[in-house]
Amino acid sequence: MAFLRPDLAELGAYVQPAHALPQIDPLDTNENPLDLPDDLKVALSQRYRHEISANRYPDGSHQALKTAVLSYVAESAGLSPADLNADHISLGSGSDELIRSLLIATCLGRRGAILVAVPTFSMYAVLAQTLDIPVVSVGRSEQRFEIDLAAAERAIATQSEPPIRVVFAVHPNSPTGNALTAAERAWLEQLPSDILVVVDEAYFEFSQQTTVAAALARPNWVVLRTFSKAFRLAAHRLGYAIAQPPLIAALEKIRLPYNLPSFSQAAGLAALAERNRLLAQIPSLLDSRERLFTALAQQPELRLWPSQSNFIYLRPSDRGLRSLGTDSSAVGQQRLFEQLLDRGTLVRHTGGGLRVSIGTELENQRTMRHFQELLTDPTAHRPAASGASQT
Amino acid sequence: MAFLRPDLAELGAYVQPAHALPQIDPLDTNENPLDLPDDLKVALSQRYRHEISANRYPDGSHQALKTAVLSYVAESAGLSPADLNADHISLGSGSDELIRSLLIATCLGRRGAILVAVPTFSMYAVLAQTLDIPVVSVGRSEQRFEIDLAAAERAIATQSEPPIRVVFAVHPNSPTGNALTAAERAWLEQLPSDILVVVDEAYFEFSQQTTVAAALARPNWVVLRTFSKAFRLAAHRLGYAIAQPPLIAALEKIRLPYNLPSFSQAAGLAALAERNRLLAQIPSLLDSRERLFTALAQQPELRLWPSQSNFIYLRPSDRGLRSLGTDSSAVGQQRLFEQLLDRGTLVRHTGGGLRVSIGTELENQRTMRHFQELLTDPTAHRPAASGASQT
Repeated sequence: MAFLRPDLAELGAYVQPAHALPQIDPLDTNENPLDLPDDLKVALSQRYRHEISANRYPDGSHQALKTAVLSYVAESAGLSPADLNADHISLGSGSDELIRSLLIATCLGRRGAILVAVPTFSMYAVLAQTLDIPVVSVGRSEQRFEIDLAAAERAIATQSEPPIRVVFAVHPNSPTGNALTAAERAWLEQLPSDILVVVDEAYFEFSQQTTVAAALARPNWVVLRTFSKAFRLAAHRLGYAIAQPPLIAALEKIRLPYNLPSFSQAAGLAALAERNRLLAQIPSLLDSRERLFTALAQQPELRLWPSQSNFIYLRPSDRGLRSLGTDSSAVGQQRLFEQLLDRGTLVRHTGGGLRVSIGTELENQRTMRHFQELLTDPTAHRPAASGASQT
Repeated sequence: MAFLRPDLAELGAYVQPAHALPQIDPLDTNENPLDLPDDLKVALSQRYRHEISANRYPDGSHQALKTAVLSYVAESAGLSPADLNADHISLGSGSDELIRSLLIATCLGRRGAILVAVPTFSMYAVLAQTLDIPVVSVGRSEQRFEIDLAAAERAIATQSEPPIRVVFAVHPNSPTGNALTAAERAWLEQLPSDILVVVDEAYFEFSQQTTVAAALARPNWVVLRTFSKAFRLAAHRLGYAIAQPPLIAALEKIRLPYNLPSFSQAAGLAALAERNRLLAQIPSLLDSRERLFTALAQQPELRLWPSQSNFIYLRPSDRGLRSLGTDSSAVGQQRLFEQLLDRGTLVRHTGGGLRVSIGTELENQRTMRHFQELLTDPTAHRPAASGASQT
């Protein structure tokens, strides 16, 4: 296979988390637990039948959807609609396609490296590796998962051939749930103009904290958002980037011309038209998160971190490790993961902890009960379910 | 914008052909003129409402769709189903995503260049340029648009830093409609194993000529196909690659993990389940093509080439140029394009000629009439419609 890049051999394919069986609560991918309301799905179905020609290519300009998204972005960022136009936005097949386009636009051919602060969303590094782009990782504080800014400074100062061209930050971060602090934002804002700042606001609707104004004010700042979380459209693959026109123009050059199926565009339009109704769910989801947090925090076997998002990040405490029959944090996490799955709760084991998505009220109650059972009942440590995934 | 690749500044974004207005016949993108049958759209709508959760990520393994496609591929290539398994196939968001992944897997970082024989499908060069991959072009014979194999040989022998790593061939070619000849296939088959052969069979269902067996027998051969033409699913963005497992493994590593929306996967499954009914349309479409070809061939103002596909490629003849009031071939083509559009027929002006998609019977009749009117009526040369696109 001499035509293939040799470095690809060392790369693994991204492994999708184990598909939830019907009797398993799928709390591993931070999806919204609610589907679209039925009347919206009926309306979309009608639109598919009567208004979308399956045989015709989609609108590659995304004109209608761009207009609708811009109106929502202005509203969500407290801006006037006049502050934003179609030159400030690019739509992608989920944020994933936008991340790939940003990498291609900046770092290709060993022109640049990227900086991430781990644990964080894995896709930046995964997609960088597929493009042979070096990834520089710095850590985060154990206390609140703030970015180790001193280490980040050093990395930027010392990394060369290639230099760091892009810094990725999720706001709030996944899997740890913390929003950018004022110090982190100030640090990002003072980065030199030859470094692109990517702020991934996938969970914006839960945190209500945004840096869109910074993206409009600075040529080296882009905000990514998605329809996969609060807007309940993970199945449809829609994301968007907000930035100044020159960067948007580069993204538009690089993206696949027909990247968004017609029906995905229709779904995005329908969700935005009904956004007041859809987003009215968020306060109750945040209430559920607080109830789950409070309940889990009462268990001394767990260490939890406050969340600004639709998930909770936790680890077994020292006492939890003892209860799990190990003194290794990694082993304890894995046992906790497997024993939750054994009881029917699928979470994500990543970055040295467990990330638990907020589900329906019923799912959250089962989550609480399963944690309680397995951490407090010494006879509860059944063998792990086979085939458990932990990526 | 120092964080951006400077070479991107010279690149243009891909411009989608002018959207057809309702009163314009859209014969510019080789779409199938027929939508899915209504009962199929109803069934898909029901499936969306009752079986697809909009809030859940799609199946990133494409398991069900892969199985269905493999069965169709075996059938269409006269193979036993046992000859093919899931390791022989990768699904993409249209062929476009697969082309990009192939380029990333082979040529990135100035590791390789690609070879194309023009005129041909523009996306190979467009996507290569977005990845800073050099494109080497050779010509085709004027008589039948066969690849200039001597020039291709020379290019492979002389091109270095980087060497040619991939040869792209469309079979049958677009925009010219000719299938690979025995000599072209023999040449492709003798290429050294460090050069990847990509045979794009987007129009296979019209030509019924396939190289799938070669792809299974050779590690350096991949066949691309799409659901956008014969299967009437351009709106849904589905394509696939057939190759030996090591190349497929590379494509699976590189693709975006959730590249296919759930509803697109459902549409692909539905179309394959009904393939006998959908593909039963093809003979009558080919009859339409022959009728249109015969009618246009009677006009001495046109030069036509035989087509193995769902479109016809033509140019004004010398007499046609005179009739169009010019002796420049490029000017004549552009006038012909504009005057067709002025009458309501949108075709593609590309590669030094006009490519006319086969439409419905009514559309084809209008196409004939418009050609006749504007080439034979000396008073017919009205000013061109404004805003005509010709990419």
